[in-house]
Amino acid sequence: MERPYTFINSAMSADGKISTKKRKQVKISGRMDFERVDELRATSDAVMVGIGTVLADDPSLTVKSEERRKRRVAQGKDENPVRIVVDSKARTPLNADIFNKGVGKRIVVVSKAAPEDKVKALMEKAEVLVAGDGEVDLAEMCRELKRRGIERLMVEGGATLNWAMVRAGLVDEISVFIGNLIIGGKEAPTFMDGEGISDRDEAIKLELMKFERMDEGIVLTWRVIYNNLMPTSG
Amino acid sequence: MERPYTFINSAMSADGKISTKKRKQVKISGRMDFERVDELRATSDAVMVGIGTVLADDPSLTVKSEERRKRRVAQGKDENPVRIVVDSKARTPLNADIFNKGVGKRIVVVSKAAPEDKVKALMEKAEVLVAGDGEVDLAEMCRELKRRGIERLMVEGGATLNWAMVRAGLVDEISVFIGNLIIGGKEAPTFMDGEGISDRDEAIKLELMKFERMDEGIVLTWRVIYNNLMPTSG
Repeated sequence: MERPYTFINSAMSADGKISTKKRKQVKISGRMDFERVDELRATSDAVMVGIGTVLADDPSLTVKSEERRKRRVAQGKDENPVRIVVDSKARTPLNADIFNKGVGKRIVVVSKAAPEDKVKALMEKAEVLVAGDGEVDLAEMCRELKRRGIERLMVEGGATLNWAMVRAGLVDEISVFIGNLIIGGKEAPTFMDGEGISDRDEAIKLELMKFERMDEGIVLTWRVIYNNLMPTSG
Repeated sequence: MERPYTFINSAMSADGKISTKKRKQVKISGRMDFERVDELRATSDAVMVGIGTVLADDPSLTVKSEERRKRRVAQGKDENPVRIVVDSKARTPLNADIFNKGVGKRIVVVSKAAPEDKVKALMEKAEVLVAGDGEVDLAEMCRELKRRGIERLMVEGGATLNWAMVRAGLVDEISVFIGNLIIGGKEAPTFMDGEGISDRDEAIKLELMKFERMDEGIVLTWRVIYNNLMPTSG
């Protein structure tokens, strides 16, 4: 495969929302899911988010457990997986937690449309990868990440990046924790937003691999099944 | 309880959508879930949808299995449960399938703001219940339905009615089939739309009662837990 093995992990409410309409984070999962996600991060080569998530939540994306960080170091790795922001216009703030917390490499993926001064400033904080013209070309990005040694890529949202990655045929697996709450709201971000399908034939097919009760909710693991019309590698 | 035992039943994609952004229906569930839903209808006193669903999908809401209809008749009931449309402005078309297919009572619930001529026309097709001023007062509606002998009420969407019923503290149980597909789309209707919560403290709490693999997906059954601030009866 010309791209990393890629999985999306997310938590959503029972009605498919990942935050309130004001993009305020809501506690959806519990302790067991926290540990599950931390383990997924610790066993990935890279963890990726979209710029919307950085601006709304300012996540550090570090491995939280000291034990897991030590395990990584013992394996000759950095404490944290490579942290990647998909950021077409180079809007990641220089004081973002992703740059300033935890040890490890950062990559900001920009498009050719990103302002030069902003790209230069980001180069002080991260490697900058350029892929695509107006927007980041995700397939090109994934090929380049693979060339840089990333075999296992974890995508942690948000809604726009999740959809774009799935739609581009770049995702192998999806795991989603469904929490015991309703958020509601036509304007609230959902697990997958973006353009969405226009016609029923365009739906992305999945296969339910696993389900497991966890905390007060349930974790579903789906395999993504792309049809012939859609490349499975970028 | 001053209102019927009320449950919402729906099918959604793995990303929480109930149709495409153009409100085109997508096949989400399969044969087993079809039978499950038909049984739920057959064992309910009434089945309810919002006007948006009538206008988009024109459902008949009949019990599909002849055997189940016969069973109802043998129990001294109509073939179909009472079919109810929540329709503040009396927009239900007179040629809607809900009026013209299957045997059984229909109720259209309007507000005082509904145009008189439209209400009169609907009276030829259904009982008309008036509750609320500009919009249907759902709590008042539920009290009145209980007085009319409806003990078990099934709500079948859409997104706006689902949310409004839950938010008004009128729902006991939620069952949702999650299908093996992704629909995506910021504009696609989700399981619960409407206003949604503004603050994390306003989230509606659930308890996971049951989960069961079905067809190519999974059915989750949640109990709704209203806190003290929210009445559990209308």
